[in-house]
Amino acid sequence: MVRFVDVPGMRRWLGEIGLETAIAGIAATIEEDFRRWPEFDKTARVASHSEVGVIELMPISDGRTYGFKYVNGHPGNPGRGLQTVTAFGVLADVASGYPTLWSEMTILTALRTAATSAMAARALAPENATTMAMIGTGSQAEFQAIAFRTLLGINSLRVWDTDAEAMDVFLRNMLPLGFEIVRARSAAEAVAGAEIITTCTADKAYATILTDEMVGSGVHLNAIGGDCPGKTELDARILRRADIFVEFPPQTRIEGEIQQLSPEHPVTELWRVLRGDAAGRTSAEQITVFDSVGFALEDFSALRYLDASIDGTDFYTEVDLIADPADPKDLFALVADAATARTPV
Amino acid sequence: MVRFVDVPGMRRWLGEIGLETAIAGIAATIEEDFRRWPEFDKTARVASHSEVGVIELMPISDGRTYGFKYVNGHPGNPGRGLQTVTAFGVLADVASGYPTLWSEMTILTALRTAATSAMAARALAPENATTMAMIGTGSQAEFQAIAFRTLLGINSLRVWDTDAEAMDVFLRNMLPLGFEIVRARSAAEAVAGAEIITTCTADKAYATILTDEMVGSGVHLNAIGGDCPGKTELDARILRRADIFVEFPPQTRIEGEIQQLSPEHPVTELWRVLRGDAAGRTSAEQITVFDSVGFALEDFSALRYLDASIDGTDFYTEVDLIADPADPKDLFALVADAATARTPV
Repeated sequence: MVRFVDVPGMRRWLGEIGLETAIAGIAATIEEDFRRWPEFDKTARVASHSEVGVIELMPISDGRTYGFKYVNGHPGNPGRGLQTVTAFGVLADVASGYPTLWSEMTILTALRTAATSAMAARALAPENATTMAMIGTGSQAEFQAIAFRTLLGINSLRVWDTDAEAMDVFLRNMLPLGFEIVRARSAAEAVAGAEIITTCTADKAYATILTDEMVGSGVHLNAIGGDCPGKTELDARILRRADIFVEFPPQTRIEGEIQQLSPEHPVTELWRVLRGDAAGRTSAEQITVFDSVGFALEDFSALRYLDASIDGTDFYTEVDLIADPADPKDLFALVADAATARTPV
Repeated sequence: MVRFVDVPGMRRWLGEIGLETAIAGIAATIEEDFRRWPEFDKTARVASHSEVGVIELMPISDGRTYGFKYVNGHPGNPGRGLQTVTAFGVLADVASGYPTLWSEMTILTALRTAATSAMAARALAPENATTMAMIGTGSQAEFQAIAFRTLLGINSLRVWDTDAEAMDVFLRNMLPLGFEIVRARSAAEAVAGAEIITTCTADKAYATILTDEMVGSGVHLNAIGGDCPGKTELDARILRRADIFVEFPPQTRIEGEIQQLSPEHPVTELWRVLRGDAAGRTSAEQITVFDSVGFALEDFSALRYLDASIDGTDFYTEVDLIADPADPKDLFALVADAATARTPV
């Protein structure tokens, strides 16, 4: 039997432990797994592009546990009442090849993306940062805000979205949680005075959400939205002034902001910073960019945290996914009756 | 909501329509899809190898429907009561990126592999073949036998396996279905006089199940077992005497019997034969080899057939896999309660 966490199960689990606990726990698990980066069998995700979006599979293994996520990205979906990004994920036992956990991951992806961003910012953002600008207040934005408050104590937000309704929703959700929020009238106004800038927009296009003159020295950019070929958010001149930190270079070179730069442009792998093998922020004036595209390891960690957390609870059901004949060499026994069935074709 | 076919649902479906109907329907759907081969976005599968086995993801899309299969291969599994191969699969809507069907595929993979073999043999085997040798009588064998009888009328089998128990199981399952079966004492005895030879063994090794002198002219080889790097079944000299037909060359060059040959060795893509664009069998003396490794398209077709066949039945349930907030831009609404939950960490 395989554990199955559906959407109601995920919501009940989060209602029980709370979003802050979940994000902190997922961030700690991601950091733990980033620190053992060399143990993982890593591949760039496998993408199937269409004119309206992309469907991706993101597999990874540490030799004991295998995991993968199915995720789509369809910027036009909200226009017809659907989510831009939906996802589900699976864990499996490497020794047997049998799946062990199957879970909704639309919500869990929002949590792990936010947890990853905040974990990276903890290593890269200026010390004593108090204010974060957020460009793009779509489905991911609330999770980012909560993650940055949980891990870095950021309580002051300056937000901007070209979609006024998206800002309405964000303020309605976040004001009751005690955030101080400035609703800016432009991206430039949003970023003014912020030590951390999160860009999280969804257009599948080369966009310039931030231009060069908008970004002063001493800031940390948490660039999430540039995450597939042909989809970027930052003026390349910002990147050239910055130190760039990435998840898995072979994937980020294709999908991240750095697809705008030469393939040789120097970047630092985040895992090396987390292990203390590479420098993170080295000066107050430095611009740091976390060019985040989302990597399979983060999903693996989130699923691993979920799986441990739901042990002994009723937040999952068990589903009969794997055919299990009494004699493992006799799969046919399970359908022998059907061999003599004679329904007219 | 996503349709979910679990193992009991799959068994009830097959019990209702019968194995022969299912195999014939899957074979027809696979052939239909092979004939529109250029419409598909094809990639070699993504494999994660360990010392004891492999876990693979096999995605494909025709621009309207996307599908993938998760499948493992663990030759040591039966020794501890587990299946060598287990699988599950998913269909999704390319326009929205939303998954639509999730199904067990351990049983369905056995059906589609057998359907593919028989469909290929219908195009490649000598006319009026009456006898098939089967080397390897594991979990896949019964399905192959039924598929070859359903599509080609083959009722006479000559079988061999190094595992006497596996042969016992095969005979126990197949004799009641009216097959004439010779239990051979060696692979050489099994193949003597057979016009079709199916090899389907599971060792993850370069093996030589058939040596050159065992294979005369005028036979069709249905080579299934050589299906990952380092795993082959045929003497390379047989391949050099034969005309070789494959599914997707970039995958077969790495995984199939032809990994023993130079990368330039000529092969014919099966879909071209099925479309009438390339010759299949051209003489009675010719040796034809279907070097089958299993391709994502076959799983796609099997899932597509299943999905259509279960319409309006109770062979599936609906599961709540995709988070679906009333306002698509407000995913957070689904977990807003959890933002104020304060469970001690």
